[in-house]
Amino acid sequence: MEQNKFSKHIDIMNIEIADPFWSKEIELIKNEVVPYQYDALHDRIEGAEKSHAIENFVKAGKIADKLKNGEAVPVYPADKWHYHDGNAHPDAFHGWVFQDSDVYKWLEAVGYILSCHPDGELKSKADEVIRLVCSAQLENGYLDTLYIINNRDEIFSNLKDFHELYCFGHLAEAAVGYYKSTGDKMLLDAACRFADLICQTFGEDKIKGYGGHEIAEMALVKLYDVTGKREYLDTAKFLIDERGKKPYYYDIVLGKETVDDNYHYNQAHCQPKNQHEAVGHAVRGVYLYSGMADVAKRFGDEELYTACKKLIDNIINQKMYITGGIGSTVDGEAFSFNYDLPNDLAYSETCASIGLIFFARRMLEIEPDAKIADTIERALYNTVLSGMAQDGKSFFYVNPLEVLPEASHKDSRKRHIRPVRQKWFGCACCPPNLARLISSIGEYCFTENENTFFVHQFIGSKVNSDKATLEIISSYTDNGKVKFKINPKEKFILAVRIPSWCDNYKFSHSCEVKDGYAYFEIENEVVIDAEFEIKVKMIKCSNKVRANVDKAAVTRGPFVYCIEQADNDKNLQMLKISKNPEFELDGDSVIAKGCREKEIDDLYSEWSETEAEEVKIRLIPYYKWGNRGENEMSVYIRI
Amino acid sequence: MEQNKFSKHIDIMNIEIADPFWSKEIELIKNEVVPYQYDALHDRIEGAEKSHAIENFVKAGKIADKLKNGEAVPVYPADKWHYHDGNAHPDAFHGWVFQDSDVYKWLEAVGYILSCHPDGELKSKADEVIRLVCSAQLENGYLDTLYIINNRDEIFSNLKDFHELYCFGHLAEAAVGYYKSTGDKMLLDAACRFADLICQTFGEDKIKGYGGHEIAEMALVKLYDVTGKREYLDTAKFLIDERGKKPYYYDIVLGKETVDDNYHYNQAHCQPKNQHEAVGHAVRGVYLYSGMADVAKRFGDEELYTACKKLIDNIINQKMYITGGIGSTVDGEAFSFNYDLPNDLAYSETCASIGLIFFARRMLEIEPDAKIADTIERALYNTVLSGMAQDGKSFFYVNPLEVLPEASHKDSRKRHIRPVRQKWFGCACCPPNLARLISSIGEYCFTENENTFFVHQFIGSKVNSDKATLEIISSYTDNGKVKFKINPKEKFILAVRIPSWCDNYKFSHSCEVKDGYAYFEIENEVVIDAEFEIKVKMIKCSNKVRANVDKAAVTRGPFVYCIEQADNDKNLQMLKISKNPEFELDGDSVIAKGCREKEIDDLYSEWSETEAEEVKIRLIPYYKWGNRGENEMSVYIRI
Repeated sequence: MEQNKFSKHIDIMNIEIADPFWSKEIELIKNEVVPYQYDALHDRIEGAEKSHAIENFVKAGKIADKLKNGEAVPVYPADKWHYHDGNAHPDAFHGWVFQDSDVYKWLEAVGYILSCHPDGELKSKADEVIRLVCSAQLENGYLDTLYIINNRDEIFSNLKDFHELYCFGHLAEAAVGYYKSTGDKMLLDAACRFADLICQTFGEDKIKGYGGHEIAEMALVKLYDVTGKREYLDTAKFLIDERGKKPYYYDIVLGKETVDDNYHYNQAHCQPKNQHEAVGHAVRGVYLYSGMADVAKRFGDEELYTACKKLIDNIINQKMYITGGIGSTVDGEAFSFNYDLPNDLAYSETCASIGLIFFARRMLEIEPDAKIADTIERALYNTVLSGMAQDGKSFFYVNPLEVLPEASHKDSRKRHIRPVRQKWFGCACCPPNLARLISSIGEYCFTENENTFFVHQFIGSKVNSDKATLEIISSYTDNGKVKFKINPKEKFILAVRIPSWCDNYKFSHSCEVKDGYAYFEIENEVVIDAEFEIKVKMIKCSNKVRANVDKAAVTRGPFVYCIEQADNDKNLQMLKISKNPEFELDGDSVIAKGCREKEIDDLYSEWSETEAEEVKIRLIPYYKWGNRGENEMSVYIRI
Repeated sequence: MEQNKFSKHIDIMNIEIADPFWSKEIELIKNEVVPYQYDALHDRIEGAEKSHAIENFVKAGKIADKLKNGEAVPVYPADKWHYHDGNAHPDAFHGWVFQDSDVYKWLEAVGYILSCHPDGELKSKADEVIRLVCSAQLENGYLDTLYIINNRDEIFSNLKDFHELYCFGHLAEAAVGYYKSTGDKMLLDAACRFADLICQTFGEDKIKGYGGHEIAEMALVKLYDVTGKREYLDTAKFLIDERGKKPYYYDIVLGKETVDDNYHYNQAHCQPKNQHEAVGHAVRGVYLYSGMADVAKRFGDEELYTACKKLIDNIINQKMYITGGIGSTVDGEAFSFNYDLPNDLAYSETCASIGLIFFARRMLEIEPDAKIADTIERALYNTVLSGMAQDGKSFFYVNPLEVLPEASHKDSRKRHIRPVRQKWFGCACCPPNLARLISSIGEYCFTENENTFFVHQFIGSKVNSDKATLEIISSYTDNGKVKFKINPKEKFILAVRIPSWCDNYKFSHSCEVKDGYAYFEIENEVVIDAEFEIKVKMIKCSNKVRANVDKAAVTRGPFVYCIEQADNDKNLQMLKISKNPEFELDGDSVIAKGCREKEIDDLYSEWSETEAEEVKIRLIPYYKWGNRGENEMSVYIRI
């Protein structure tokens, strides 16, 4: 861990995105997702399951008022994961225990949107929501509508399951995002008051617990970075260090005997510094690892960083789909064992890939590593984008690599595999998470340290960094060309990632290439042209992955491709691609030579070569699958 | 449906097994399984979950006495699937709702054993158990210990879930088996008294319900065949005809609105005569279909037989593993959709293949069909035999076609896939079912009609049929040779199945070969020698089955083979078999030429041929897998 390599990402206020590919996605977030979610949070979408999120804040605000006035307030049970009309009093909290977080994620996305697209109407809507949120905060700073509405006496009593620290984390992330984007401090102040309460509550000689769904760790570091309040950072470290100590806090609370090697689901089976394999709920995992990297960097904690490196290596080398998806089992929405990457049973939650991007960016801030930057690209252009329909109106929670609609309908093992995107989820974590990531995409592209500005992702933008103003003109996704117009403020080194998929590239200026980055010395105003040759490639998966032997995937630049029934008829498993196919392009489709086996009618027959006829196989980018109604899809194709 | 083709199977009393392969298996049942199960039923196995089966009959016997004497008897809840110390009063019923059936299956197996191996000590044990069973019977004939012990008022109130008709069915099957094997009528009389009660209870203008777990249908036909009591046959037909009528009986009882197309799990979604696809719980399915075939034959019911034909065709052509296993999903232990035959997620319950054999034998009694006889062979020599360890001391419930022990331990989706056999199950349906099938194996080998004696399976035996006495001397499993010493009582035709796996065969006498059978005209004493050339074959699966493209299975005669880690090292998916391999034999192992790919370390890399080294692949018969500790296994091998 070399402190002189430490870098920071470029804040959203210093980046203006103008990219032929990504600007459209951001527009979708602004024009479709954000308004839709606003209505959803307010329970104004006909036919959709009610969110109750805003309603809860209204209820909590009234209760907060009554408490301030010393009025009596009723108590309701706070013992469920999900509260609905069937199991909750009409005046009690409704929705999931983490329902507040949907409001915070929406506010965070709105902040980012406002940073580049000022919009008075949107801002006044957001400000109204912020006022509502703040109205619910108790005098001691506490702010979680479940316990405010239902039972003030049970606050912080079930950290494992009931998501208070999780909701706090999203509040803090939203507050920091909104503040940095708009300069408005109201939400930030509320987040700090809640953070202060948490710092007073958790620590040595206080509650030695930690949240069952991690995020508070990285959120506290964000608050520290903005406010400089040391106790936020210390508490983040405390939450990480305390996690997984034996006897387990979760057992102590329940008066249970500690059984060794428990709580993998919550990454609380052992202390994070001793965690070397990514296990448990995938989103929780990468959120914890993000916080670990934050703390490791700020404390120079070598041991914690070593754990982070082993964890990200384990994910990248043993537990990640070619699409950047992670979490290969629906049970616990979790990481499975090494090399267990089934295509048709994948969980590969959109949120998990988003969290992987959070983790990876933090690792790049500690040490640049092209493989990690490649991983951000892989997750971003494939699983994350696949999470949203082309029209921004429906979403995937789960991103499988192989789909047979009949199986999704008839096979209960595959019920989580939806063949088409859904409008909105009862448990709506992915769409607002997508919104906040895509609307802040610039924060995942660049880092800078003392002497070097790193370009990890090639997204057209204007960047105002400590070292220079840069204009990046990119047609990267189309033809691999990127132009860097650089106006230096001081002498510095520009480091440009060379994508791992690229064998041939050229730069208009001389540079030194080392470990996946090209390094340019910049002294004066200069325009550097980069060209990464994009070839269609056939990729094989390690034969340790049982699902993919005798198969290949096709990629083109950052995009993984897939075949769909809409282009290639049903029974995609009867298609075979040639070993050395010539590929043609048709728009962003790829046409490959291959063959289609004739159907074998006998269930079992003596082996012989199966007859096949030559066909052209049409492949489309994975992120576009499922936009033409229900149909079969497969990323891997037989060789 | 041609009545002149109808045949009957040869009863166990007229068959004496003497076979180099099967006699050993029967010995195992006699010497290992039956004594072990006797102890298990009596809760005398240390460390095993208690059965409570005998204990329930003891309790029920005392209650039956009290009821006869007009004494007061307490009531306990009868509302659970499983009763244990945690949820049941010590004096109440314990175990599964179908616990009685384990006793009946044991008695049935003992009967068959006694028919060929007279054993005074075993018989007196069985007779004591029979006396105990009979002591529990109520005066009106009712005999199910759950309701006798817990609540007499709720008898026949929950037909869908609580297995009274199922336990009755096993009682009747055991009673008929024991009576035919030993001539003892005590259990048969008890079964008839219970059957009389059922006939009085179910029917037009009576209860129009049917059991959630089928078997009563075929059991009533067995009782009819033995007793000639017409109402047994009529009630069997009633139970079948009534099943699945709308509004559903199960809904009527609960006062629920009938939703169309429900109760697939119980094969009660529509009337059996309209069922053309095998769905729901696989064991229940084949038990129903067996009863349907019985009723179709005895009533000449063309419509019902057509349904049976469609069902067996659907199973054989779309829903059966190469091992004769059925039921490819653990959820509901059920048939999945057509061609969904995953190897590593299979359920393929031992009992389901046993039930498939019941169904198939009944279909052969209506019309000889070599493909159906082949199916009996396939199930018998592979899934059924795989169900029991080589030492008869442990059992598989689930018979997967691919096993990775790490997955069974770590992947909750595969928790049902045990890498080694278990000593005993809490829900112990398979071991006693295996015992009763194997001990009566002769009943599945032969059928005879007016003028023809059919040999469907080649198991060494002496048979005394209406037409002849036959001695069959078989080394079929070893070298495909079978000798038929025939002493005719009248002129008749001998029909010998030609196994579908056999391309070259010779017979010592002239015959006519038609539709998979060789027909010999027999007038005088004669010895016919048959020789079926056994070759090792490579089999491909229809490419409609996604799991098996680019793979082959290896068979030799009736046996499906598999590879195990014990012989071939771990990572079996890295092995490939040559397209046209020469096979060597080593004992009952097959050695095939092939190669092993080198491990590919990179999770994703540009496609190229993977290096491989030549290896010899050792295959063993599938039924022997899992006898050498935990290890990887696979039936299918890459080509």
